[in-house]
Amino acid sequence: MGEAFSRFERQLQFLIEADKLKHIFRKTKLFNQSRFENDAEHAWHLALMVLTLAEYSNEKSIDITKVLKMVLIHDLVEIDAGDVMVYDSINRALVRDKELAAANRIFGMLPEDQQAEFHCLWMEFENRESPEAKFAAAIDRFEPILQNHLTDYYTWRKHEITSTQLYDKNKHIQEGSQFIWDVVQHIFKEAKEKGAVI
Amino acid sequence: MGEAFSRFERQLQFLIEADKLKHIFRKTKLFNQSRFENDAEHAWHLALMVLTLAEYSNEKSIDITKVLKMVLIHDLVEIDAGDVMVYDSINRALVRDKELAAANRIFGMLPEDQQAEFHCLWMEFENRESPEAKFAAAIDRFEPILQNHLTDYYTWRKHEITSTQLYDKNKHIQEGSQFIWDVVQHIFKEAKEKGAVI
Repeated sequence: MGEAFSRFERQLQFLIEADKLKHIFRKTKLFNQSRFENDAEHAWHLALMVLTLAEYSNEKSIDITKVLKMVLIHDLVEIDAGDVMVYDSINRALVRDKELAAANRIFGMLPEDQQAEFHCLWMEFENRESPEAKFAAAIDRFEPILQNHLTDYYTWRKHEITSTQLYDKNKHIQEGSQFIWDVVQHIFKEAKEKGAVI
Repeated sequence: MGEAFSRFERQLQFLIEADKLKHIFRKTKLFNQSRFENDAEHAWHLALMVLTLAEYSNEKSIDITKVLKMVLIHDLVEIDAGDVMVYDSINRALVRDKELAAANRIFGMLPEDQQAEFHCLWMEFENRESPEAKFAAAIDRFEPILQNHLTDYYTWRKHEITSTQLYDKNKHIQEGSQFIWDVVQHIFKEAKEKGAVI
C-alpha cells in the first residue's frame, strides 16, 4: 500500500491544486450578465458543448474522449499564468513562457505517466496539431463568441475589438468545424451591423 | 440547411439553458474556504477526478467516456430542482419528483436522439446501475468529503452531520472503488477524533 498511496497522494495534491482554477476569472460574462465566468465553469461548459456538438466536427471520426480531456485540462496553466484575452496579442506573447512553466509545475505534480499524458494533450491542443485539437480549439472559441452574442457584446465593446481582430483570432474555427465557423460569421456580421465592433 | 439548423438551434438552446448551472450553489466550500462551490465547477472537478483517478475503479475495464458524460450532466436537473444535501433525507425524497420533471424539461430541449442518450445516462447514474455509474457516484461523493476534510469540516459541523449519516450516505463508494472507500473511512475516523462529527 505504501507505493500505491504515494502515487495516490500525488494525484490528490494535483486535484487539490486544480481547485484554484475556480478563482481565475475570464473577460466574458455569464449569459445572464451577472458576473464574469471562471475557468473551471468555462471548462465544464466546453465539455458539455463537445458532447452536444461533436457531430459538427469536420473530421467525423474524432476521438471524443481525447477532445474532452483537452478541454478539461486546457486552462490549468492559468492558475499560475492568469487569463489573457486572445485579442490581447502583446500580452498573449508575453504570457507564453509563464504558461510553459505552469504546465511543468502543475502537470509535474502528477505521477510520471499521467504528467506525460496531460502535458502532451495540452501541447497538442495549444498547437492545434490533430483533428481533436482543432475541434477542441473551435469549441474554446465558440463559447466566448456565444457569450458576447448574448450579453450585448460586453467584452468586444469594452475592449474595442475590431472586425479584423475577430476574424484573425477566430478563423481557425473552420479547421475544426466549418459548420460552427458559418454560424460564427453570422454572429460577427450582426455585431458589426449593430455597431458593437468597428 | 433548414433541417440541420433547427437541430442545431435546439442544441444551442440547451447549451444556453445549461449556463444556469453556474448559479446553483452547493453546501460545500472551495478548498480555500472563500465561498461555496457551484454545480458547474463541481461537475468540472469530478470530470478531472475521473481522468486522474480512473485506475482506482473496482472494475478495471470501465468506459471512461461514459463516466465523464455522467458526471458532466448529472446535476443539470438542479437548475429546476435546486441543490439538496445528501444528508437531508426528508428533502431529498421530496425533491425527487422535481428532478424527474427537470430531466424531462432540460434534456427535452435537445434533439430526440441526444435527449434519450442524456436521459438514460442520468437515470443510470442515479440508480447506480453499472460499473460506470458506481464509479461516477463514488467520485461525486469523494469530492465533498475531500472539501470537508480540507475546510475544517465546514458542512458537517454546520449541519451537525453524524458518523452514522456519513457512513450510511457514502458507503456505496465501495461499490465503485474500494480504494477510495478506504481513504474516505480514514477521513471519517479523523473527523470523529477531532470532534467535528458526533
